Formats: sequence, C-alpha cells, structure tokens
Amino acid sequence: MKNFEKERLILITNDDGYQAKGIKALVESMQPLGKIVVVAPTEPQSGMSHAITVKHPLRISKIKNEEDLKIFAVNGTPVDCVKLAINQLLPRKPDLLVSGINHGSNSSTSILYSGTMGAALEGSINLIPSIGFSHISYDHEADFSAAVILSRSIVEKALKNGIPKNICLNVNFPNANHSEIKGIKICRQTMGYWREEFDKRTDPIGKEYFWLTGYYHNDEPEAQDTDEWALKNNFVSIVPVQSDLTSYKTIKLLNKWDF
Amino acid sequence: MKNFEKERLILITNDDGYQAKGIKALVESMQPLGKIVVVAPTEPQSGMSHAITVKHPLRISKIKNEEDLKIFAVNGTPVDCVKLAINQLLPRKPDLLVSGINHGSNSSTSILYSGTMGAALEGSINLIPSIGFSHISYDHEADFSAAVILSRSIVEKALKNGIPKNICLNVNFPNANHSEIKGIKICRQTMGYWREEFDKRTDPIGKEYFWLTGYYHNDEPEAQDTDEWALKNNFVSIVPVQSDLTSYKTIKLLNKWDF
Repeated sequence: MKNFEKERLILITNDDGYQAKGIKALVESMQPLGKIVVVAPTEPQSGMSHAITVKHPLRISKIKNEEDLKIFAVNGTPVDCVKLAINQLLPRKPDLLVSGINHGSNSSTSILYSGTMGAALEGSINLIPSIGFSHISYDHEADFSAAVILSRSIVEKALKNGIPKNICLNVNFPNANHSEIKGIKICRQTMGYWREEFDKRTDPIGKEYFWLTGYYHNDEPEAQDTDEWALKNNFVSIVPVQSDLTSYKTIKLLNKWDF
Repeated sequence: MKNFEKERLILITNDDGYQAKGIKALVESMQPLGKIVVVAPTEPQSGMSHAITVKHPLRISKIKNEEDLKIFAVNGTPVDCVKLAINQLLPRKPDLLVSGINHGSNSSTSILYSGTMGAALEGSINLIPSIGFSHISYDHEADFSAAVILSRSIVEKALKNGIPKNICLNVNFPNANHSEIKGIKICRQTMGYWREEFDKRTDPIGKEYFWLTGYYHNDEPEAQDTDEWALKNNFVSIVPVQSDLTSYKTIKLLNKWDF
C-alpha cells in the first residue's frame, strides 16, 4: 500500500501519559503513515478503564505544534482525551485512533480495567477505526522495537481492510524480540480473573490502609484460541472487541423467567 | 419463595457514595431477603466505569455494625469496593451482589462509563450473582418507591432461577410511579452514543478549561427490543451483560486478513 498520506489524520492516546516510552514508540510507528495528533493524559492513568471526568474541569496543554506532529496533554482520563480530541482539538474526525503502546498486558479480563482499551472502545463508538496496543512487559524501559514494526503492519492491514462498525482491536505484544515472535494470531478473550491480595499496612498514627495487589488466574490455560495462550507462546494476539455487552443467549433464558 | 434467610449474605455497593438516597433504597429493598453488608464509596464516583485505584492506598471506615446490616465506606471506586469486600471485609463470598440504585440511566452505551455496572461486572467475574440497578432520573431526591418493590422482585427471581456464569444484569427503572410502570422487559443494549459538547470557560487568570457535557443520541429509536425503547415506554429494562467483549463474528473476518 501507499504509505504516507498527507491527508490521513491519526489520533494517538494512551493511559501511561504523554511522556511514556510506549506512546513515543507508537508515534514513531505511525509517523510514516500520516499526520499525527497526540492527545494523552498529563499523568499516568492506569486502571482508569472507560472512566470520564465529571468532578473537575479539564485543561489542555499544548506540548508540540509541528505540521505533521502535534502533542496535547490533558489532566484527565484516556476517554476524556478522546472526547476532547474529537470535539475540540481535531479539525475533523480522525481516520484512525491508536492507543498505547501500554506498559503491561491488556489481555483477557484485564481489558475491563484498561484505560488504553477504554480509549479504543470510545473511538469505535464514535465510528473511528480504533486499535489499542499493549506490551506485556510492565517495565518502563521495555523494548518496543518489534512492537513499532508490527503495530505499523497491523494498522496498514486495518486501513486496507477496514474494521467493522462498533468494533475495535485489542493487540498485545509478547515479551520477545522480533526474531523470537512467531506471528500474529486472531484470538478470543481468555476467561480468567485477578485474584486480589491486598497489601495491608499501618500508617504512623496507627490507622490501616490497603494497596491493591494480586495475580492473574487463567481459567483455561490450555485453550489455544485465547489471547493468553498466544502471548505465552510468543505470538502477537489480536482480539476483536465490541461495545455491545448484551449476552444474546441469556435473553432467551431470561424470557422464561416468570415476571 | 421463602423470603428472609439468615444465612444469605448480600453485598451492596454503588457509585453515588454510601450516603446516596439510591443505595438506601436498595438496602430497604434487600433487607427482607438476608444479611446486608454495604461496601460503598465515601464520595460520589459517577463515571468511574471499571476503574481501580492504583495510585493511592485505600482506607475503610466502619459506618454501621449491626447484626444484619453492616456499612463500610471506602475512599475508592465501586470496583475497589467489591474487591475489598470480597478479599478483606466479608467472611465468605456473598450469595448476591447488588449495585445502585444509581441516580441516572445506565442504559445503552452509558453502561461503559458506569461505576454501578463496573461493580456488577466485577461481581460476575468473581462468579457472584450480580445485578446493577439504575433509575433514569438524575434527581438526588428521585422517587425510588417503585424501584424498591421491583428490585426485590427481580432479585427473588434471580435467586430462584440463577444467573449464568460470567453474566450480570443491567436493570433500569423508568421515571414513573408503580401504577404507571407497564412491566419488566428483557432487552438488548441500544446502539447509540453520547454527543459531547464541552462547556468551554476561562478562569480568573485567563486560562481555558472545559466541563464535559453533552446529550445522548439513539441510533435506533424505533427498535422495540432495546432498553431505551422499553424505558421510553415505561417498562423496566433488563439487559443481560457479559464480560467477554470478543466479537466472535469479527474473528472469522480477521482470519482472512493476510498477516
């Protein structure tokens, strides 16, 4: 495909903040494809899911203002960033929204807590082709070199083929260099959950407080069509994600309840 | 069915905070059914979706400690409340989680931003029968009298029939009194979205700031199987909701992309 298109407008956001290494990698990956506008949180916003800010006003700081790369920082959540971008900052609806590259996995049920994927879902609701990218390493200095190449390749495929209405893509990269990565695998979301173990401490005046911690439990580690299996086996996982949460088969069941 | 069961443990949370009229209505509704433990945010947490608190520690305040009604307040999100309840506060996994009654609608795509439904989804991931209740009036003094009666009736049906694994229910009440309500309707999530219009203001030192505002746009106002239609026509809507966001039909499509 023809790569750089001057008229292609790409919105980039994340949940680790505009200064994170991951979003810089995503800018590097997307720059050959079009004009970039970054609208990202001023501070890290991990775990913010699809949250919006209603209790305090939002402020926008202009960080960079080049012809092909503009960067804005917002004191809000990833979803706030998408809403402000679409409604205030961009001259028109962007041709693509990419979010990430997140420092840490958003596979399986982690998608529900993910600000990265909250932003991608918000894009898809607004009928923008949207993809969230995450690297399963939580390291601030994680190696994004393979992710830079593969993100661009995935975006090129998405622009060529189109993403269905109200669907976005959840892409996770394994912790592996380019030569170790076995390929790209289309997956379903793994069934699993976080087993929480709170870290209970006592402050200097004797009052208890709790830090959220825990570990991920996979309900189906052997299922080869899941994103967790793909990542464990050094594949890049892509899960197509929908904003319609209705369980259609349960509708039939509930209609038998005698209300 | 037999109503009060001393051994039945019911966890109640919400996103408007433990002092909201809506959660008091839900306690009133559930008290005839079992032992109640309320674990709810100290302050309103509207729009917090499935967010979790990772940047500051959580603190728990004991508000009430009666045999059949305990109330705890947490300086976190609704999902934090559920996690702390399950892992720190309750003697065992509860038999039921109910969230709400929210002041304001969580129908259609509003579910994605909803802390009320974030808590219900968190319950379902932890295999607890979970139901989120919302009243479409945003009024702090909304009339919950019909909702008190109908919430109890819906919960009794759910306890009797069981809710499938990893599914929770999104119940919305119309703004109508008991005699005006036409019945309970099992629905799918309406396709629609929020059209944002930011309220742009200037502070005393001349800097711009933005308040998030906007209005809901329904993509399919005529569709009688949707929750928006049911509520507009004075039905109580119930949408069965799943935590698996995979779009299975898109998997087939993506497998044709040439990676």
